[in-house]
Amino acid sequence: MNKNSSNMMALAPNTSNKRETVCIFGTGDFGRALGHKMIQCGYPVVYGSRSTQISNLIPKDAEVLSHTEAAQKAAIIIIAIQRQHYNFLTQLEEILHGKVVVDISNNLKLNQYPESNAEYLAQLLPGARVVKAFNTVSAWALQSGALDASRQVFVCGDDMEAKQMVMNIVRALGLTPLDKGSLLAAQEIENYPLQLFPMWKFPVFLSLGLTAFFFFYCLALDVIYPYIYEKNDFSFFIALTIPNRVCPVMALTLLGLVYLPGVLAAIIQLYRGTKYRRFPDWLDKWMLCRKQLGLIALAFASLHAVFTLVSPIRSFVKWRTSKTIISQALNNKTEPLDTTNAWLSDSYLALGILGFFFFVLVGITSLPSVSNSVNWREFRFVQSKLGYVTLILSTAHTLVYGGKWFLSPSAYKWYLPNIYMLSLVVPCVVLVVKFVLIFPCVDKPLTKIRQGWERNPKYSE
Amino acid sequence: MNKNSSNMMALAPNTSNKRETVCIFGTGDFGRALGHKMIQCGYPVVYGSRSTQISNLIPKDAEVLSHTEAAQKAAIIIIAIQRQHYNFLTQLEEILHGKVVVDISNNLKLNQYPESNAEYLAQLLPGARVVKAFNTVSAWALQSGALDASRQVFVCGDDMEAKQMVMNIVRALGLTPLDKGSLLAAQEIENYPLQLFPMWKFPVFLSLGLTAFFFFYCLALDVIYPYIYEKNDFSFFIALTIPNRVCPVMALTLLGLVYLPGVLAAIIQLYRGTKYRRFPDWLDKWMLCRKQLGLIALAFASLHAVFTLVSPIRSFVKWRTSKTIISQALNNKTEPLDTTNAWLSDSYLALGILGFFFFVLVGITSLPSVSNSVNWREFRFVQSKLGYVTLILSTAHTLVYGGKWFLSPSAYKWYLPNIYMLSLVVPCVVLVVKFVLIFPCVDKPLTKIRQGWERNPKYSE
Amino acid sequence: MNKNSSNMMALAPNTSNKRETVCIFGTGDFGRALGHKMIQCGYPVVYGSRSTQISNLIPKDAEVLSHTEAAQKAAIIIIAIQRQHYNFLTQLEEILHGKVVVDISNNLKLNQYPESNAEYLAQLLPGARVVKAFNTVSAWALQSGALDASRQVFVCGDDMEAKQMVMNIVRALGLTPLDKGSLLAAQEIENYPLQLFPMWKFPVFLSLGLTAFFFFYCLALDVIYPYIYEKNDFSFFIALTIPNRVCPVMALTLLGLVYLPGVLAAIIQLYRGTKYRRFPDWLDKWMLCRKQLGLIALAFASLHAVFTLVSPIRSFVKWRTSKTIISQALNNKTEPLDTTNAWLSDSYLALGILGFFFFVLVGITSLPSVSNSVNWREFRFVQSKLGYVTLILSTAHTLVYGGKWFLSPSAYKWYLPNIYMLSLVVPCVVLVVKFVLIFPCVDKPLTKIRQGWERNPKYSE
Repeated sequence: MNKNSSNMMALAPNTSNKRETVCIFGTGDFGRALGHKMIQCGYPVVYGSRSTQISNLIPKDAEVLSHTEAAQKAAIIIIAIQRQHYNFLTQLEEILHGKVVVDISNNLKLNQYPESNAEYLAQLLPGARVVKAFNTVSAWALQSGALDASRQVFVCGDDMEAKQMVMNIVRALGLTPLDKGSLLAAQEIENYPLQLFPMWKFPVFLSLGLTAFFFFYCLALDVIYPYIYEKNDFSFFIALTIPNRVCPVMALTLLGLVYLPGVLAAIIQLYRGTKYRRFPDWLDKWMLCRKQLGLIALAFASLHAVFTLVSPIRSFVKWRTSKTIISQALNNKTEPLDTTNAWLSDSYLALGILGFFFFVLVGITSLPSVSNSVNWREFRFVQSKLGYVTLILSTAHTLVYGGKWFLSPSAYKWYLPNIYMLSLVVPCVVLVVKFVLIFPCVDKPLTKIRQGWERNPKYSE
Repeated sequence: MNKNSSNMMALAPNTSNKRETVCIFGTGDFGRALGHKMIQCGYPVVYGSRSTQISNLIPKDAEVLSHTEAAQKAAIIIIAIQRQHYNFLTQLEEILHGKVVVDISNNLKLNQYPESNAEYLAQLLPGARVVKAFNTVSAWALQSGALDASRQVFVCGDDMEAKQMVMNIVRALGLTPLDKGSLLAAQEIENYPLQLFPMWKFPVFLSLGLTAFFFFYCLALDVIYPYIYEKNDFSFFIALTIPNRVCPVMALTLLGLVYLPGVLAAIIQLYRGTKYRRFPDWLDKWMLCRKQLGLIALAFASLHAVFTLVSPIRSFVKWRTSKTIISQALNNKTEPLDTTNAWLSDSYLALGILGFFFFVLVGITSLPSVSNSVNWREFRFVQSKLGYVTLILSTAHTLVYGGKWFLSPSAYKWYLPNIYMLSLVVPCVVLVVKFVLIFPCVDKPLTKIRQGWERNPKYSE
Repeated sequence: MNKNSSNMMALAPNTSNKRETVCIFGTGDFGRALGHKMIQCGYPVVYGSRSTQISNLIPKDAEVLSHTEAAQKAAIIIIAIQRQHYNFLTQLEEILHGKVVVDISNNLKLNQYPESNAEYLAQLLPGARVVKAFNTVSAWALQSGALDASRQVFVCGDDMEAKQMVMNIVRALGLTPLDKGSLLAAQEIENYPLQLFPMWKFPVFLSLGLTAFFFFYCLALDVIYPYIYEKNDFSFFIALTIPNRVCPVMALTLLGLVYLPGVLAAIIQLYRGTKYRRFPDWLDKWMLCRKQLGLIALAFASLHAVFTLVSPIRSFVKWRTSKTIISQALNNKTEPLDTTNAWLSDSYLALGILGFFFFVLVGITSLPSVSNSVNWREFRFVQSKLGYVTLILSTAHTLVYGGKWFLSPSAYKWYLPNIYMLSLVVPCVVLVVKFVLIFPCVDKPLTKIRQGWERNPKYSE
């Protein structure tokens, strides 16, 4: 019907000759693995190589020719060569003119070169239609067929049609192409496989540090103190009792740290009277890892829940229970039901369960597929409103759990407060400041500032 | 290679001059936030404004010009103006001819105008290539970089190339463009950010109403009744005991309500003898919120599970247990193991656990990413077959839990049935009707009707 | 601006005449359902039929004409006819020339014909622009509006513009089009709706078989043996005790089977000295269903967790506990705390909880949306490193649980080992072999082989 589609038809295979020939420059590991896979999927593959001697490593159905001959046989040339050897391609510029040249290279470090490898290739070969693809797939995965990980292949390029052709190959290999736009995206695509949970590093190290601190704090007060002063060997507390003290403390503290930057940002904006100045760097970074902090808090909360539920099965707890009952039986007395105690015990459990329930809800909405299916307003509702409900319930759970204990001297071994009191510091600060921020006299100017109003417009230059 | 791609190359940036200039009409909050972000990402930004005086609010690297001058400098013009001021753009029609004009506006209410803002803009500027985009992103999110919510930007437009250019900008800002097709989709895109869980409203209100009813029903029978007639203060039941009675009742009732419309629809189709007449409106709406009802039922079931597991830790339960044991010890007798009781207790727990297990499985498959990776046949298998297994197991769990209790007068305080009996009404009705529907003599005509057969073809007009 | 886009504009509707006419060939069930839905969404629909008599079944707003007349009225023709009747379309070749012809057919069996229906259609009508679409949607779903399942419609075709037009219709019907590339993908798209969890079949049958075996093994040792030799009726163990023995055994065994093929593959590669020879078929298949095996293992582990947590509520456990306490009380003695026991009990529980925690983490990353948002390196880290942590913790949990029991004769009823010992076989084999494989003298050649090195290059032909 139009030039474009007829062109596609000419390049696309007809049913009698299903796949078009693909040329691969370079007979290194990834080049061979990709060639293997393509031959399996029905593509005729021709290798371009300096020497045609090393052909015994190469898939047997593939041809090996010189670079020039190989490039002439195919409309698509895959460059499976390292960036430092790209130079020689300039000799082939004429043959590669108008052809689809696929850059699949990766670097060893983030932002190793000023421009991405694909953009560098496009500069060397101005007449070729350069497409970036396949760099996120490992040779091992291609070879073994163990593609149970992400099947996504990021593709970018300035030529729509060339990109379509490469995306068709990607699909034919059983992978999912993802169009990332023009060749400008190549830098990002090349950095992608080099990352190992970059957003998680700070939250994980913070959690490990805090966990270690709280663990030794507990160890001192719950194991070493009774051993020294009461000659009791509670060393087995290390296995389960102390973890079940550290987990809730970590969960509550981290949850507080999720909401602290939000109230700090509000205070800064109120103070500055504008939203058009950037936050300090540390606050920006903190705000960007709130999701990770929250998920780690959820992990600690889950562990706390299971540790608590498992307690009636513990040998120590069973022993303590039977000791209490036997001593009552031997003294021939039955204690009446203490209603206040029943109230406290039940409400502290109920608050904890509800807090955990809302926490899990917030956690589920942070799954990529769920957060993509809600709009901004709904996401804010869940993450902000339900998040604060979680924080309030968890703080109340801890307060009711502690009860009047903070008044008793036994809570202060070695003049140190019990660990549950430490966990209340951050969330209480957040809740008090947030409570102040929702007063109309504070909320109104803040809302105006967030809508773009400025107290002293001169500040914004 | 062909006209299309060379054209793209001309418009797309070359590597020496990375980003093309973007023009923004309007210096309001969103216009400024978008400009800030674009400058951060390397785009030269030029503002078009009625007056060039208010420039101190504007990002400092941006130019501010008259509308005409600004539009001439860029191939892409973003209209950050409210719809009611679009009229003046007709004066610029000549300059905007052939340019990519991006409508980013939102309305205050769903379907505020007969046509979408973008379509209205396309009518005003017939020569421009109008693209709808960015309306789902908030200015605050752009400004703060806190884009942990959905990064999806819906894009639609009749011109493929213009859409590609806008999608490239979206990607460069670190967001994910989602092509929603032609400009006809603009209405839907404009309505999207105005919704707050529209499908959840009815299920949530229904659940709240039913929960309140069951709560007060329980309160009357379990707290007020013993207080009046037995002078027992069980007020602490409010914290945990009553919630753990209401939750399973709600879970089972809502699960029944998920499968009730299906059997009603089957009955209606059998009665009418055709599938080509629309169901009554209430049934249509009910069927569309089954997923939400099911997920709320799952939430109640989860709460019930945790409430039950937590019971051995409760102060009241501990007191009751020790009272029983002490009285046995004091009476110097040991009860033998009651095997029937052990059978009943274990099977009611096992049924509940299995029912909950299948319920969670069904819940997991309703996650968007999981349901997208199964085909229709697999989804039906899980949601329908496993769903009925869940319903049968949960109903059996409740029946075994009740046991012979419904025969004893103590189950009917104030002549009212115990709450667990109420919960059995809906699921039992569904299961009985479903059981009738799978008889061949009923199933056969139903299958034929669903394949398009009609008893009285005249009805179908 | 260019030919392509102006062309789109001509074909795309303007706002006054919103939708273009669509022609449907065939008045069968799916044709009618699709027509109904399209009319609801504002498309004028015209049916092409051999006879125009049977019109009372057809949606009332649709026109029914002869094939020739109907095809002339629309740019898009949907072929709702079975493949065996496609022949007659060759008569209409002239009228269909250049038109968008949509193949929506499905087959009854996988790979029923040598080529896909859409490719067959493209051969019959070389001048038409054939697009495959809609075959994954059921008529019932379209009719009832109950599209809560996957809304994805796979679309493929060699003509970009034709594909865009069909994708716009898909979007207008409220569905999500997914571009699967050229018409070569039609075979895969046609096979898709015929599958019912193909990857799950083997893992599910394996699990069912193993579960049955372990169930009867337990039944013999825990119910039949005490009944014969001790005259104890423990038949109620069937409800909960035996499932809670089978579940952990299944979980651990299946988890071992997930990591066994990996170490087998390493051994084979070391033996062969190359990675360029295919693994035996059974190993390939085994490796491809590791994810499914792992998820089933996770399901068993979850059931084991809940079964264990529920135990203090069980009537039998309560009876046993009170019997122990009463006998102590009657004997007037209080047992001191056994610290070794407390250590063992707590550490076995803690190991189990941590193992389950990491298992759930690994399970969450296998959700499609999560695994798509991590790169290959991160996925490997979670699935391989955390997976082995899970395996080690679970094996340790089982070893500590067993303790010195394997030394006592009571663990060998009928000379058979207790079931927990059976569960340790596979994971211990995996862990021992893996331990050997990480020695440098073994790891080094393996790494070299996986990077493409070969010991005897002649092997690769």
